[in-house]
Amino acid sequence: MATKVTPRSTDYARWYTDVVQMADLADYAPVKGCMVIKPYGYALWENIKAGLDRRFKATGHVNAYFPLFIPLSFIQKETEHVAGFSPELAIVTIGGGKELEEPLVVRPTSETIIGHMYAKWIQSYRDLPLLINQWANVVRWEMRTRLFLRTTEFLWQEGHTAHATAEEAQEETLRMLGVYTDFAVEDAAIPVIAGRKSESEKFAGAVTSYTIEAMMGDCKALQAGTSHFLGQNFAKAFDIKFLDENNELQYVWTTSWGVSTRMVGAVVMVHGDDQGLILPPKLAPTQVVIVPIWKDEAQRSQVLEAVAKAGAVLRDDVRVHVDDRDEYSPGWKFNEWEMRGVPLRIEIGPRDVERGQVMLARRDVPGREGKSAVPMEGLTGAVQEMLTAIQINLYRRALDFREAHTYDPKDYTEFQEAVSSGFAYSWWCGDEDCEARIKEETKATVRCIPLEQEPGRGKCIRCGKEAGERAVFGRAY
Amino acid sequence: MATKVTPRSTDYARWYTDVVQMADLADYAPVKGCMVIKPYGYALWENIKAGLDRRFKATGHVNAYFPLFIPLSFIQKETEHVAGFSPELAIVTIGGGKELEEPLVVRPTSETIIGHMYAKWIQSYRDLPLLINQWANVVRWEMRTRLFLRTTEFLWQEGHTAHATAEEAQEETLRMLGVYTDFAVEDAAIPVIAGRKSESEKFAGAVTSYTIEAMMGDCKALQAGTSHFLGQNFAKAFDIKFLDENNELQYVWTTSWGVSTRMVGAVVMVHGDDQGLILPPKLAPTQVVIVPIWKDEAQRSQVLEAVAKAGAVLRDDVRVHVDDRDEYSPGWKFNEWEMRGVPLRIEIGPRDVERGQVMLARRDVPGREGKSAVPMEGLTGAVQEMLTAIQINLYRRALDFREAHTYDPKDYTEFQEAVSSGFAYSWWCGDEDCEARIKEETKATVRCIPLEQEPGRGKCIRCGKEAGERAVFGRAY
Repeated sequence: MATKVTPRSTDYARWYTDVVQMADLADYAPVKGCMVIKPYGYALWENIKAGLDRRFKATGHVNAYFPLFIPLSFIQKETEHVAGFSPELAIVTIGGGKELEEPLVVRPTSETIIGHMYAKWIQSYRDLPLLINQWANVVRWEMRTRLFLRTTEFLWQEGHTAHATAEEAQEETLRMLGVYTDFAVEDAAIPVIAGRKSESEKFAGAVTSYTIEAMMGDCKALQAGTSHFLGQNFAKAFDIKFLDENNELQYVWTTSWGVSTRMVGAVVMVHGDDQGLILPPKLAPTQVVIVPIWKDEAQRSQVLEAVAKAGAVLRDDVRVHVDDRDEYSPGWKFNEWEMRGVPLRIEIGPRDVERGQVMLARRDVPGREGKSAVPMEGLTGAVQEMLTAIQINLYRRALDFREAHTYDPKDYTEFQEAVSSGFAYSWWCGDEDCEARIKEETKATVRCIPLEQEPGRGKCIRCGKEAGERAVFGRAY
Repeated sequence: MATKVTPRSTDYARWYTDVVQMADLADYAPVKGCMVIKPYGYALWENIKAGLDRRFKATGHVNAYFPLFIPLSFIQKETEHVAGFSPELAIVTIGGGKELEEPLVVRPTSETIIGHMYAKWIQSYRDLPLLINQWANVVRWEMRTRLFLRTTEFLWQEGHTAHATAEEAQEETLRMLGVYTDFAVEDAAIPVIAGRKSESEKFAGAVTSYTIEAMMGDCKALQAGTSHFLGQNFAKAFDIKFLDENNELQYVWTTSWGVSTRMVGAVVMVHGDDQGLILPPKLAPTQVVIVPIWKDEAQRSQVLEAVAKAGAVLRDDVRVHVDDRDEYSPGWKFNEWEMRGVPLRIEIGPRDVERGQVMLARRDVPGREGKSAVPMEGLTGAVQEMLTAIQINLYRRALDFREAHTYDPKDYTEFQEAVSSGFAYSWWCGDEDCEARIKEETKATVRCIPLEQEPGRGKCIRCGKEAGERAVFGRAY
């Protein structure tokens, strides 16, 4: 905690890796492109997991676990899937000292091996829908990696469901996109745009891919979760069939959807500032830190007693940490907990003890303005209220930021300027060539075609052709 | 659920795999030696995880995540470690379409990569103790595999701690053995013998290995958890040093400890019977199932109303499932839930509705004897009491079984008989040759040298040499 992070305005990428490392979220591993998730970062991930897992179970899903290793031949069964994932595979060729007859792929995603099992498990319409999720590690051999955002190995959840009809599978795909949106907004305080991916950006093997897109602090987009309608592509590749109510054999319709440790990177980039991390209270491993302030021994015992009492009072209802280390000054501690993004700090000094009060200091509002004195009596209520206010403020602030950097350019010149400093929300023809040209000329991609569209038609922002939908364009991670 | 499991007396091994598959815990994967943990088995594992994780956190440990891939050179740094694990490694030689310069090992255990990181993180005595746990998958190339008991890939937790002194590390090693014992006894209702491993059976790289050993339903032993005092072996191999309070550079002392999905197999084999699984209430995904019994439509609505009410009443306090499927008969449902080991069944028929009561049927006590009528009023209390009674009974029963099959043989002839049908608790000289001879002659191994020893000395059961400790011998999984 000796040094400060690089300011965002100086070098945003440096700021990001500084914060991730100095806030103790992660460290580089000795294997290229891999990371170590440190205890503080993992505690944040555990809270993300809990928030998602609760929502999955509430929507009727159960967890299971499928093997890490997938026979290479499985990956090759779905044409688009193999084309998409082949360049990124890590392959085991030796096991138990011997060359393997068939190489094993370390799963980059599990549609294929799960498809194989579903073909065995699903016989009749009574077995449907099958709603399974898996929490697992996956490996994609990436050339350019960044902590949390793109790593060779990452942690994620992958939901895989099978349905009797296309409609049900389509509904499931959108239901889970809704679950992701709800999690991002309510727990991570991240505003997201839910939409459809363009043809060129969709998942290898999907009929339609949906995404939630968020704007980071440097105005670039981050894909924070995806949900795919896979049609019957994997059902046909893996022969997943069921007897319907008329006793006819049909292929099932499948979906898959995932959120990864990338979400940690999103939380860092959406909320953080030049002092470090700012964590939304619902996800913060420590929601409140209590720091005693004293000068002499007489004050010390008095203050520490009040600090211990405040800690004990809060412990049942909030995640509180009492920092009563003697070897560090209050100022040093303030900096450390600010770096780690703890949403609320409670300071207790001799004067506070006298007055039967504590000082609250909000992480999201620096300086005097974020400070307030509250009585010890009724402390829990006041703290909970403040945490709610911080949660709401973080969301509001991120939304305002995104809106301030989202443009409706009148022409392609304005569009080019817009995507250099934010999102452009523009009519688009949907043509792949047009998309490729935009990318070449501006580095921006179609982030998504939002589900919510205003009625009407317009002219494509690039080629001028008639367009029935608007898309969000931006540069992306 | 159409067929029955093979009776234990006919073929115990078949009984085991029948139960695992028919109770829907796991299935074979298309990759040799790997398994798929099905939703019901995974829910059981989630409860095991929760019980352990809570205890780890209560003893000051935090979770983190280290990479799946370990450079081959790391494994080779600790002499005994590499000798022990080399034959079992799965090795990645291709990444992103290219041959790797240094092959990567898929972690069989993480002492080496964690040691590498600890060398970076630990500088001073202030950084100690470092108490980290990881929940992860690991891979060991096994020749003969069995669902949950021995699979090429398995799930586990591995704790890795570093300490300033040998005493502290030794204390930690035994503390975690205590945590495992407490979990086994309190949550899994499995009596275990906590003890030291013999030299030949210890972990590759450990100074001392400790274990908890349980007796399965066929009188064989299962190692259910291990805790290792690693001395300075890994500290020296990975150069993990710290400045002590006198500003002198010292190697740290490390420990590691693990419990795996093998614990699921232990639960199956300790408690199960010829009707299937019997789950201890604390770990059961479903603790109570409610089955309605009715003959005609008038009864049906009346009964279903009472069933729904009972479900609603219990839901807040116990994990309850209402099985109101119309397409199956009550008898069919009874069999299914018995197979799945649900500890308590509630039956509600028209006569029960009339009398304002329900019938409780214990899974652990078959037939009339396990049945009792209890009033709807105060149902939650009665159910909770019954679940506690079942939990206690399962433990008591397993302990009685182990005691009935643990012998104190007078001579080696009796010893040979003893280990063919249970455990022998005998004086042992501690000599490796003697141990090897016993194994060759009886197939039994030293399961452990129990921590609790009666005072005194005796003659080694095999060679007659003076012995200061008694050991538990048995055939093992």
